[in-house]
Amino acid sequence: MRPLRALLLNCTLKPSPAESSTDLLLAELAEAFEKHDVTSETVRVVDHDVRFGVDVDEGSGDAWPTLRQQMLGSEILVIGTPIWMGQPSAIAKMVLERLDAELGETGPDGRFLTYDKVAGVAVVGNEDGAHHTSAEIYQALSDVGFTIPANGVTYWVGEAMQGVDYTNKDPRPEKTAATTTTLAANTAHLARLLAGSPYPAT
Amino acid sequence: MRPLRALLLNCTLKPSPAESSTDLLLAELAEAFEKHDVTSETVRVVDHDVRFGVDVDEGSGDAWPTLRQQMLGSEILVIGTPIWMGQPSAIAKMVLERLDAELGETGPDGRFLTYDKVAGVAVVGNEDGAHHTSAEIYQALSDVGFTIPANGVTYWVGEAMQGVDYTNKDPRPEKTAATTTTLAANTAHLARLLAGSPYPAT
Amino acid sequence: MRPLRALLLNCTLKPSPAESSTDLLLAELAEAFEKHDVTSETVRVVDHDVRFGVDVDEGSGDAWPTLRQQMLGSEILVIGTPIWMGQPSAIAKMVLERLDAELGETGPDGRFLTYDKVAGVAVVGNEDGAHHTSAEIYQALSDVGFTIPANGVTYWVGEAMQGVDYTNKDPRPEKTAATTTTLAANTAHLARLLAGSPYPAT
Amino acid sequence: MRPLRALLLNCTLKPSPAESSTDLLLAELAEAFEKHDVTSETVRVVDHDVRFGVDVDEGSGDAWPTLRQQMLGSEILVIGTPIWMGQPSAIAKMVLERLDAELGETGPDGRFLTYDKVAGVAVVGNEDGAHHTSAEIYQALSDVGFTIPANGVTYWVGEAMQGVDYTNKDPRPEKTAATTTTLAANTAHLARLLAGSPYPAT
Repeated sequence: MRPLRALLLNCTLKPSPAESSTDLLLAELAEAFEKHDVTSETVRVVDHDVRFGVDVDEGSGDAWPTLRQQMLGSEILVIGTPIWMGQPSAIAKMVLERLDAELGETGPDGRFLTYDKVAGVAVVGNEDGAHHTSAEIYQALSDVGFTIPANGVTYWVGEAMQGVDYTNKDPRPEKTAATTTTLAANTAHLARLLAGSPYPAT
Repeated sequence: MRPLRALLLNCTLKPSPAESSTDLLLAELAEAFEKHDVTSETVRVVDHDVRFGVDVDEGSGDAWPTLRQQMLGSEILVIGTPIWMGQPSAIAKMVLERLDAELGETGPDGRFLTYDKVAGVAVVGNEDGAHHTSAEIYQALSDVGFTIPANGVTYWVGEAMQGVDYTNKDPRPEKTAATTTTLAANTAHLARLLAGSPYPAT
Repeated sequence: MRPLRALLLNCTLKPSPAESSTDLLLAELAEAFEKHDVTSETVRVVDHDVRFGVDVDEGSGDAWPTLRQQMLGSEILVIGTPIWMGQPSAIAKMVLERLDAELGETGPDGRFLTYDKVAGVAVVGNEDGAHHTSAEIYQALSDVGFTIPANGVTYWVGEAMQGVDYTNKDPRPEKTAATTTTLAANTAHLARLLAGSPYPAT
Repeated sequence: MRPLRALLLNCTLKPSPAESSTDLLLAELAEAFEKHDVTSETVRVVDHDVRFGVDVDEGSGDAWPTLRQQMLGSEILVIGTPIWMGQPSAIAKMVLERLDAELGETGPDGRFLTYDKVAGVAVVGNEDGAHHTSAEIYQALSDVGFTIPANGVTYWVGEAMQGVDYTNKDPRPEKTAATTTTLAANTAHLARLLAGSPYPAT
């Protein structure tokens, strides 16, 4: 079984060391990935000086080129994001915009460098917005060359307007745990297939 | 205080007499409207033979022209919809498409016949999707001439993947009740203002 | 090379024999599929008596069970839809809701029957809405077990508020043609991979 | 006629003095506002050190509190945004998240400080995404207390995948100009009504 690497981008608005529900969900996903011989690296984007823009490098001090190299060196990319206002975080949107630059970066075979990489989504919020958040992210990532697996998202949200945090749920939500397990299995399976049999040149 | 009329369209997928969580939320909204001298009429759209299309009348037997007259005779329109797959119901989308026809129906002053009407949204689901559902509906309704009040939606959704129905919540969710009260107050206030002071001719 | 079958659902609001821009785009996609040994069948959903609902069979006369069998017998599903109000058509939403029933239909291995099937999207409108339409459809289809390929959509929209139809564009838009070619290639490649190496049982 | 103030936030990703299509559309809107005795102030958000977060003040050097005071001092707020990946810009999302803090800021009457303010949207892109972008923004702004007028958006997008910029369109798109005129008229009318007759206390 080919070992795989996954880059998990935590798009919380809160710099370290603040507690992050997204971090917890991504840690659970990283653990689930281990069973499939996938090594995860989690990065909290807001801790790095990623610039707004749609280029691969926005210049002096931009932290995106380093994260981009990690993405290019991984078979799997996971966007982990909190929900704010029923939508992905501004950090998540910033990351997607930086990935937009991949549309201008093709290899010698004319294919995007993202081709054959698989993307998953992890979403967490006090209430409401997980499906829409995954919709936004799936669309942006498919547009720039990632493949979305069956059941490509794991998520947790609480009851409407109750304000409960994922980090405070005790016991851990079983349904979310099962969904995380499935996401890891499907993402790893698909990434392994594509790593062995790339999309054709265009 | 000018008496107002509200048309509440229940866009559940289930014909009467099936129980409908959307119906319950709309009943609570109708009760809240009473305090503001707003008379509500609730219609379960799926009980009527509304046709797919984007014309004001899609021909023989189309039930939309009757509902449309009720809409034109009301100062307030509320779209009540269940969430399916994190999105508005197909019935809600069908209704919005029929309202699209209003873009071709202007009065002698060049204004859409929907101008000066206020639209609210009521959304209910087992889990997740209320904010996005309201986003879709706000956009479609503003596009065709309705005005959206401050806090233009009332909603309830349960915890992720738990499958609880609004009709089975006991006691009734207090936060949703408060939100319903606010929606009724804001919608009535705004509709009364616009009924007295219409948008200018274009 | 394993021959594949694709079911292309045209979700136009207009019954046959009305001209349909979606039909044209789907015909172009079917032609592109041929080069990859994919046999396409296109169905205009509105010509069939598909019922609103979220069950696999909504009872007497429901046309969905027949379409569902075609879907289950295909490795590829394409949702083709016009844009109305910047969103997928109500027919498209109705189809997605019928596919929601697959969440209750697992095989002996505990997997959804949709697993290993790949879904693509074809969207056409006078103006604006293709990306959002694909977002809505990707999310619903990934949720019920389909896999979304890299660059999973082909589309055409005209300039804002100009009202041009895809069927009237002459010459044919080259960029859309290239995108259709890519969609066919990627969808076929991925469907062939998954047909040979199914997702693991859960 | 009560004079009104409008704050127009340009959410382009590009710092000054880079050319901005959004800036052009906002300038056209500001001119249209003049006819309704509305004084506009346009701010390019990316030129200021606005921080990620959901508080009214994110601390040392955060530029949002100043922009927030301008917002609180205006009867009208316009979010102007480019489209990236069919969605609002990350800057727009960051601004909406800062406005989320208003849910915790009520006046002595228990009402949000945003109540009675009217919000409009201006969207521009090479292609596709204006309706969805307005949907996202309408929902977030209604949630935090703004009112959305009839036809609450002006926009321009070009034909799919053609890459034309709004700033390069010659002659200027007439339909967009007419839509801008309507947006200014409706926004001013509604803001004037609400300034004179506030929403009731809750």
